[in-house]
Amino acid sequence: MTLSVIILAAGKGTRMNSRLPKVLQPLAGKPLLAHVLAQATRIEADRIITVYGHGGETVKAAFKNESAEQAIEWVEQAEQKGTGHAVQVTLPVLPETGKSLILYGDVPLVRAETLHRLLEAAAGGIAMITLNLDNPTGYGRIVRDRKNLITRIVEQKDANEKEKAITEVNTGIYAVDNALLHRWLPQLSNDNAQGEYYLTDIVALASKDGIEIGSIQPEYAFEVEGINDRLQLAGLERQWQLHQAQQLMKSGVTLLDPARFDLRGHLSIGQDVQIDINVIIEGDCYLGDGVQVGAGSHLKNAKVGAGTKILPYSVLDDVTVGANAAIGPFSRLRPGTELADDTHIGNFVEVKNSRVGRGSKANHLAYIGDALIGSGSNIGAGTITCNYDGANKHQTVIGSQAFIGSNSSLVAPVNIGDNATVGAGSVVTKDVPAGALAVARGLQRVIEGYERPKKKM
Amino acid sequence: MTLSVIILAAGKGTRMNSRLPKVLQPLAGKPLLAHVLAQATRIEADRIITVYGHGGETVKAAFKNESAEQAIEWVEQAEQKGTGHAVQVTLPVLPETGKSLILYGDVPLVRAETLHRLLEAAAGGIAMITLNLDNPTGYGRIVRDRKNLITRIVEQKDANEKEKAITEVNTGIYAVDNALLHRWLPQLSNDNAQGEYYLTDIVALASKDGIEIGSIQPEYAFEVEGINDRLQLAGLERQWQLHQAQQLMKSGVTLLDPARFDLRGHLSIGQDVQIDINVIIEGDCYLGDGVQVGAGSHLKNAKVGAGTKILPYSVLDDVTVGANAAIGPFSRLRPGTELADDTHIGNFVEVKNSRVGRGSKANHLAYIGDALIGSGSNIGAGTITCNYDGANKHQTVIGSQAFIGSNSSLVAPVNIGDNATVGAGSVVTKDVPAGALAVARGLQRVIEGYERPKKKM
Amino acid sequence: MTLSVIILAAGKGTRMNSRLPKVLQPLAGKPLLAHVLAQATRIEADRIITVYGHGGETVKAAFKNESAEQAIEWVEQAEQKGTGHAVQVTLPVLPETGKSLILYGDVPLVRAETLHRLLEAAAGGIAMITLNLDNPTGYGRIVRDRKNLITRIVEQKDANEKEKAITEVNTGIYAVDNALLHRWLPQLSNDNAQGEYYLTDIVALASKDGIEIGSIQPEYAFEVEGINDRLQLAGLERQWQLHQAQQLMKSGVTLLDPARFDLRGHLSIGQDVQIDINVIIEGDCYLGDGVQVGAGSHLKNAKVGAGTKILPYSVLDDVTVGANAAIGPFSRLRPGTELADDTHIGNFVEVKNSRVGRGSKANHLAYIGDALIGSGSNIGAGTITCNYDGANKHQTVIGSQAFIGSNSSLVAPVNIGDNATVGAGSVVTKDVPAGALAVARGLQRVIEGYERPKKKM
Repeated sequence: MTLSVIILAAGKGTRMNSRLPKVLQPLAGKPLLAHVLAQATRIEADRIITVYGHGGETVKAAFKNESAEQAIEWVEQAEQKGTGHAVQVTLPVLPETGKSLILYGDVPLVRAETLHRLLEAAAGGIAMITLNLDNPTGYGRIVRDRKNLITRIVEQKDANEKEKAITEVNTGIYAVDNALLHRWLPQLSNDNAQGEYYLTDIVALASKDGIEIGSIQPEYAFEVEGINDRLQLAGLERQWQLHQAQQLMKSGVTLLDPARFDLRGHLSIGQDVQIDINVIIEGDCYLGDGVQVGAGSHLKNAKVGAGTKILPYSVLDDVTVGANAAIGPFSRLRPGTELADDTHIGNFVEVKNSRVGRGSKANHLAYIGDALIGSGSNIGAGTITCNYDGANKHQTVIGSQAFIGSNSSLVAPVNIGDNATVGAGSVVTKDVPAGALAVARGLQRVIEGYERPKKKM
Repeated sequence: MTLSVIILAAGKGTRMNSRLPKVLQPLAGKPLLAHVLAQATRIEADRIITVYGHGGETVKAAFKNESAEQAIEWVEQAEQKGTGHAVQVTLPVLPETGKSLILYGDVPLVRAETLHRLLEAAAGGIAMITLNLDNPTGYGRIVRDRKNLITRIVEQKDANEKEKAITEVNTGIYAVDNALLHRWLPQLSNDNAQGEYYLTDIVALASKDGIEIGSIQPEYAFEVEGINDRLQLAGLERQWQLHQAQQLMKSGVTLLDPARFDLRGHLSIGQDVQIDINVIIEGDCYLGDGVQVGAGSHLKNAKVGAGTKILPYSVLDDVTVGANAAIGPFSRLRPGTELADDTHIGNFVEVKNSRVGRGSKANHLAYIGDALIGSGSNIGAGTITCNYDGANKHQTVIGSQAFIGSNSSLVAPVNIGDNATVGAGSVVTKDVPAGALAVARGLQRVIEGYERPKKKM
Repeated sequence: MTLSVIILAAGKGTRMNSRLPKVLQPLAGKPLLAHVLAQATRIEADRIITVYGHGGETVKAAFKNESAEQAIEWVEQAEQKGTGHAVQVTLPVLPETGKSLILYGDVPLVRAETLHRLLEAAAGGIAMITLNLDNPTGYGRIVRDRKNLITRIVEQKDANEKEKAITEVNTGIYAVDNALLHRWLPQLSNDNAQGEYYLTDIVALASKDGIEIGSIQPEYAFEVEGINDRLQLAGLERQWQLHQAQQLMKSGVTLLDPARFDLRGHLSIGQDVQIDINVIIEGDCYLGDGVQVGAGSHLKNAKVGAGTKILPYSVLDDVTVGANAAIGPFSRLRPGTELADDTHIGNFVEVKNSRVGRGSKANHLAYIGDALIGSGSNIGAGTITCNYDGANKHQTVIGSQAFIGSNSSLVAPVNIGDNATVGAGSVVTKDVPAGALAVARGLQRVIEGYERPKKKM
């Protein structure tokens, strides 16, 4: 069976009050539409047809690098004439056979598991996701007959008192045989107050054709929640973050406060990982067994080995850290940093595009950029690798068991050999052989009885 | 019409358990009483009469710099004999005509819009703010007659079962014709269990005089919430912060978590501003179009140009930043910092009382104090402007397109010319001409086969 | 009367998905079991008998350093055959007389005050803690006779409709005469679906013996809440943190957001302490009158004098700070730091194992390790005490009124005398006498018309 996914993504989102098209607004770090596309990929859709309108070029540009296998077919809805119209414009490219899922670019969190169940429920030709709400006011109600079969959807404004009491509502998400879409969509009418074509009308058409309408309910209410303004966006972000937090806790992560945890991407974990308050995880991260992430730390595309402790307020971006390392507090690890096992990077230390060997340490106020450091070396407080000459970047190579005295400046390109020593406060411009001591500083002069400047009045 | 605002601010606030008078306790960064005064100013009150008592001198001192046009008249209530008594002590200074609003120093969040509506409702002589509560236990209930007119207020302890079922309660906030206040207040009696004069008794007096009592309800419940202890203070702080967050989201700001946002002052914004978790905004701030504020950053009196990205954990205080700049993470910008467009200030960099020209950068571990930097200059990692000689502060002037090597010390007063270069690790004590290279460091000596100290046993 | 506390701590805690035994999982910074033990100590139990099973050696090892007076007696429950069985295994060591409290290692927050009340209620021989729940589904219901006396506990699966409507449930916490335990426990039967011995059966035995069963309810629901998985752990952590926050607010602390405050230990306070958002307090801390703790700061075993301001993102660990000091933002104070009154430690400054005298300052980007600093001295930006020679740590001694120029390196061991001055950028390797100026840096050379490297293509 050919499975098509039709995503309606043409809405302007006026209430977002933004230059960015609504479906590009980020939730958990990626555009609303990207969430829907990810689920379309997970259910192995053969075709992904996205209906765009407002800000269409921006939307298309945002997804131009999607993988070829999952190439999105873009169909323009030049005028916004209702959800029915939006699906109508896909008919020219929609296969004659197979099934389609009709999803929404601004209903980002429907899960593939739910869509699988929806497809199963559509064995008879059509199925929809419905939801029971404590307060259904404003939503289209699902009217069922005495056999409990869905017969129609009645909108709030058209509902009588009995219908208003119905708590099962329409979510707008459908699975439908393409043959039926090709049959029904041309029959839609815009003879209504808004002058729009409503996709919901296919329910009545199905009923009229004697086709039984399947239905399922989502496991989580957030799956069918749509976004129209930034309050709803923030609300859904929190629901999703809490859901992710709960899933992580179930799989064995200790979160000190699930309400103060943000995962904007994907996190793989070992056992007994502990994450303190206000941590943000972005991109693709891995935390090995027993890793501890201190409060307020931010990790992006970070791979952290077992037993490593990341102390508070450490910021890691595109970084690999070995096992049993100690990072932070206030460490900044920038892209291209690879720390081996047992390394220590301490407070106010920045590392960029550098490899640091096993057991080496830079504990205080240092900048390690474009460097290659062996194992067991100690980089003193205040050490700076002078990697930039104003035009080009150069590499600093430090061997193993080297000792770089505090406040040293290593002017790259430069090599410090194994077991070499650099005296504190030295500016090293020439290579230091293995086992040698390099000192490069002025001699100390002392002037007795010195008069310091006086405070000017 | 003369509009007077009477603010009752004499309460001791014993349950606050504080040395600070209750009305000076801060909410959203300013004293409770200051919130009320701000609304009094917004409705253009002609007279602001504040009744003080406990800690009166401290309270008066806290507001002595208020603008002259809105000078506060302070009236002492030496003994605390009830709310009615508190208004009685204002009679000697209260105009004979016009209207008065009776507000409370510990009910900080009533809005000017609500007060306008209250004044309109008081066209007949008197109006009050009432509130419907799910659980009205403990509050004075509003008793209405069959015409729905307010006839009296019955306190919890005096209420019969039917009256206890009333959910509309008294908030204590009134608008009253001054003539009526002058008539009624002397009639109040303290013939009750507490031996106090109750302001609420004016409702019965109005009813007796056949004056119809107007009433309105506030748009938000927090507007009439009073503060008696620190739990209530924290509770109201959160309600107010969430309200502010919602208003910002409606006007187009993306807040990653509205429950983790604090605005203690005023924020003006461009379009599509994004604010990550745990940001604190203080004083008067402006964020231009597309500004991004990273998690945990604190901004106070900061003006930030369009497109600038502030990375996490940056602390800005009395600062102006141009457009498309990059700040942080872990940047500290102190008062008097002016950064031009396209500037970069990076991790563990402090800037104070300095102007940094377009496109200039200080990316790592530097201290820029009392400096004037041209455009396109690069300040190397670890650079320190030595602005203090132990007695006086001096200025460092760096031209455009200059390159300051890492770990340099610039001993002020000193000038580094346009396009000049300072070698890494230099201590610059004398001016460097434009286009020149300055180097001030020791020569490198190398001692081969050096024996490092051994660990003492 | 001999008071014994029996703590059942043998559960495996499979649902925690952890290598750590359940009773060692941390809540508010210490193991679940440690919370129970702390209350056992507070009620002055004569005997503390802990029943261990899964991970028993790990559990015992975690508490091997408990004070001798409160030595824990460990009894192994080799097989897990129910709560009744767990208490049975304690009989050989349980005194014949006196009373026992039966507590749980995974019900951590029962309070000593509540246990006292429970013991009083057990005057007749036995008492239990019960709880009224809005939704009692799943819990054993308390069946009372017409005299309101407890007759038995009926489990959910055995309850009829009338019993299911009972909202009073069993918490499993009992106080019982030891004589009765010795009488009843051997009578327990495992003739039930699970084949386990249920402690709850003692209620029926008491009733059969005509012994009146006392009962109390806890003041807070969290006191009887048990932990089975990490979601419950996180939930109880939040309840407890909020409770602690409320207690602190009642005693006069201003918390800017009680939901963003973590106390993992004990905090003593003066008056009018103010704690901003996301502060974490660990170990044993004291904050004097008027201390302000900035957002995101972490304090562990810190003693802070009156009037001191800790600015945001300061991390203090095993530190003493005097009065009216200023710390942060971004200060890191490590163990052994003692700051006198009026000291200033500023941004990106680390202090370790050092004493800093009254009024001395280190405001920017410095590392002060193993140092002794007098009063009124100024440590310039970028100063590093080079305390480590690659093998041993050495001390730096700085007198009073000294001025250490910026970017200096003080190579320990070294003495800087009172009123001495160190020129900026100096590497000081030899002592500097009182009143002297030391300069140790290269002379400045200037090369005019210098050509900087060009960007490689």
